[in-house]
Amino acid sequence: ANSVFSACGTTIFETMSRLAQHHGAINLGQGFPEGLEPPPVIERLAQAVIDGPHQYPSMMGIVPLRQAVAAHENRFWATGVDETEVMVTSGATEALAACLFGLIEPGDEVVVIEPLYDSYLPIIRRAGGVPRIVRLQAPDWSLPRQALADAFGPKTKVLMLNSPANPCGKVFDADELAFIAQLLEHHDAYAVCDEVYEHLTYDDRPHIPLMSLPGMRGRCAKVGSAGKIFSLTGWKVGWVVAAPTLLAPIAKAHQFLTFTTAPALQAAVAWGLEHAGAYMANLPATLAARRDRLAQGLAEIGLAPLPCHGSYFLSADFRPLGFKGDDRDFCTHITERAGVTAIPVSAFFETDAPKHYARFCFAKTDQAIDEALGRLRRYF
Amino acid sequence: ANSVFSACGTTIFETMSRLAQHHGAINLGQGFPEGLEPPPVIERLAQAVIDGPHQYPSMMGIVPLRQAVAAHENRFWATGVDETEVMVTSGATEALAACLFGLIEPGDEVVVIEPLYDSYLPIIRRAGGVPRIVRLQAPDWSLPRQALADAFGPKTKVLMLNSPANPCGKVFDADELAFIAQLLEHHDAYAVCDEVYEHLTYDDRPHIPLMSLPGMRGRCAKVGSAGKIFSLTGWKVGWVVAAPTLLAPIAKAHQFLTFTTAPALQAAVAWGLEHAGAYMANLPATLAARRDRLAQGLAEIGLAPLPCHGSYFLSADFRPLGFKGDDRDFCTHITERAGVTAIPVSAFFETDAPKHYARFCFAKTDQAIDEALGRLRRYF
Ligand SMILES: CSCCC(=O)C(=O)O
Ligand SMILES: CSCCC(=O)C(=O)O
Repeated sequence: ANSVFSACGTTIFETMSRLAQHHGAINLGQGFPEGLEPPPVIERLAQAVIDGPHQYPSMMGIVPLRQAVAAHENRFWATGVDETEVMVTSGATEALAACLFGLIEPGDEVVVIEPLYDSYLPIIRRAGGVPRIVRLQAPDWSLPRQALADAFGPKTKVLMLNSPANPCGKVFDADELAFIAQLLEHHDAYAVCDEVYEHLTYDDRPHIPLMSLPGMRGRCAKVGSAGKIFSLTGWKVGWVVAAPTLLAPIAKAHQFLTFTTAPALQAAVAWGLEHAGAYMANLPATLAARRDRLAQGLAEIGLAPLPCHGSYFLSADFRPLGFKGDDRDFCTHITERAGVTAIPVSAFFETDAPKHYARFCFAKTDQAIDEALGRLRRYF
Repeated sequence: ANSVFSACGTTIFETMSRLAQHHGAINLGQGFPEGLEPPPVIERLAQAVIDGPHQYPSMMGIVPLRQAVAAHENRFWATGVDETEVMVTSGATEALAACLFGLIEPGDEVVVIEPLYDSYLPIIRRAGGVPRIVRLQAPDWSLPRQALADAFGPKTKVLMLNSPANPCGKVFDADELAFIAQLLEHHDAYAVCDEVYEHLTYDDRPHIPLMSLPGMRGRCAKVGSAGKIFSLTGWKVGWVVAAPTLLAPIAKAHQFLTFTTAPALQAAVAWGLEHAGAYMANLPATLAARRDRLAQGLAEIGLAPLPCHGSYFLSADFRPLGFKGDDRDFCTHITERAGVTAIPVSAFFETDAPKHYARFCFAKTDQAIDEALGRLRRYF
């Protein structure tokens, strides 16, 4: 068995979802929305299934989706991309794998920012990359600029940038991005920009794609996700947007990882990107209200929520509850005893993690949030 | 850019399909069926889309599909697997990548048999494996046993076995498989068994899964494909079947390559495996007749078809036509001039390939085959 992957446990999301199911808990762990799916996009998929085709589409994706993704980029972020700069993938997870396997040569260094999504480090290492980890500073997740600059060096090939960030809900601001851009230029490095939560920012914090900064157009591969845009995480349709010379080596990896994605799914996503503008426009306000509902409820119960300006996730410090144990204990404990599941934030750190935060997903119905809060309130 | 992948061209299937489209040619190149899709399975998918759910299923696949795959294995091959030994993937391409990235440690040797599917070598090398290539002997694609035995050694971790084989249509027989099994035992190695054409054997050549041989149950990871079973190649639903200790490291790779596959697609495939038995039973006779139609037509035109006992593909020697040029020239030439596309068989070899065979896909309608033959006849 391969030693890099064998050293990994089963992903924490799967582990906690299984536990939630086993105990009949309300699952505020794994980041999948409930009650937010747009019916017209689903109906469009059913129609696309009836209409066909059902055979391999082009490995780059169907033209209507590539065009729709490019139009979406240009409408929202004015990055000036065209359809040839778009490659469709089987979800953002595959997009990330294709970027890393396609860009990294063994020995290359990859700068990553902790807390980070749990596929980053295993894939970087399996691709032969050497991670250089920089840590955001809790509780406000500020970027330690000197540490970031120090992590770059002559071997740096790629920076992984996740904004809005999972799990911490940080939205990198113009100033931070300009700092990052200057490091990339100086070290002649590239960025893989995981922007799957691009529309999910709150409190008037704008999402700014790193690609939109001066000089960054050719250095950034942006990863997007239909699952996150349309609250349909099971569809597993993602994409990479990058300048042709950067996209080419990523496509070489993609063609051997999955090759292509179901054409009906692609057609429905293309339709959604063109026709579900109101849905995209309204979702952030809906989710901001859910976040507030959850944050207020958790605070009333005695947890201390951290700031969150984007994504599906709110983390909270549970020490004020007087719980004895670390975050894995806490998340297991509330699943088993209170019937509510969360994700331990230490799972997003390599070593030496803070162990007193639990991550709650608020992309759920008001009823689910209220019921979860009620259960926690009754338990504590 | 990564040097292993960058050294690869765009996959030959995509390249030739693009060329076919550009010239309005009948595409007998890339292996996708036409006119063979089972309507009830498609209708079931439309219904599954309407019914939902639309969020992440378990990374191992939905339970009904895992059960259906296990039942299918047991019904056809009596391999005695249960659902916990099944992992659903986003197509067989992802299944192959998960097997290789999950099992290979850098430096491990992987025995492969040429001609071979074009993702094998790039993924093996990207995973850090060292391929040891053994070549079937044209024109009857016999297995050189001594060369195979010599390719095994103390560093051998995995053998890749594709039966029925693409592109050559070879179906490994009981004797050959017993020889292979004994090599695996002797060298304590594993096999990744690419059996995506498991139902597509002709001329009373039975498909025999290597896993069904004595001692092989724990050494084989079998890759299957709904796209090939139901002539729905665009669906991209595949699976790996393996004993728990072998499946575990493969699942570790899968969770970071794609994580999971659309639940509606999985539900429809599960339904098909349970209810479309007549379709599976009838498809081989249909395809054998198409193969014969194509083989006879090509022979009449002056090509020399090779034996084919399985898969979608018939290869033919075009030298009798007096064509001056290699197989890439030939396939480009007939696409541009005759309006018929085939795949050069040299694309399935690493070096020193035979360059006088073209591969034709016969999983097409009678009309498409006849029209292609008519075009070739008129041209030559
Ligand atoms: C691949 S399951 C993970 C879903 C997710 O993005 C999360 O919960 O963080
Ligand atoms: C991934 S496209 C290749 C389809 C196929 O199996 C073939 O044409 O050989």
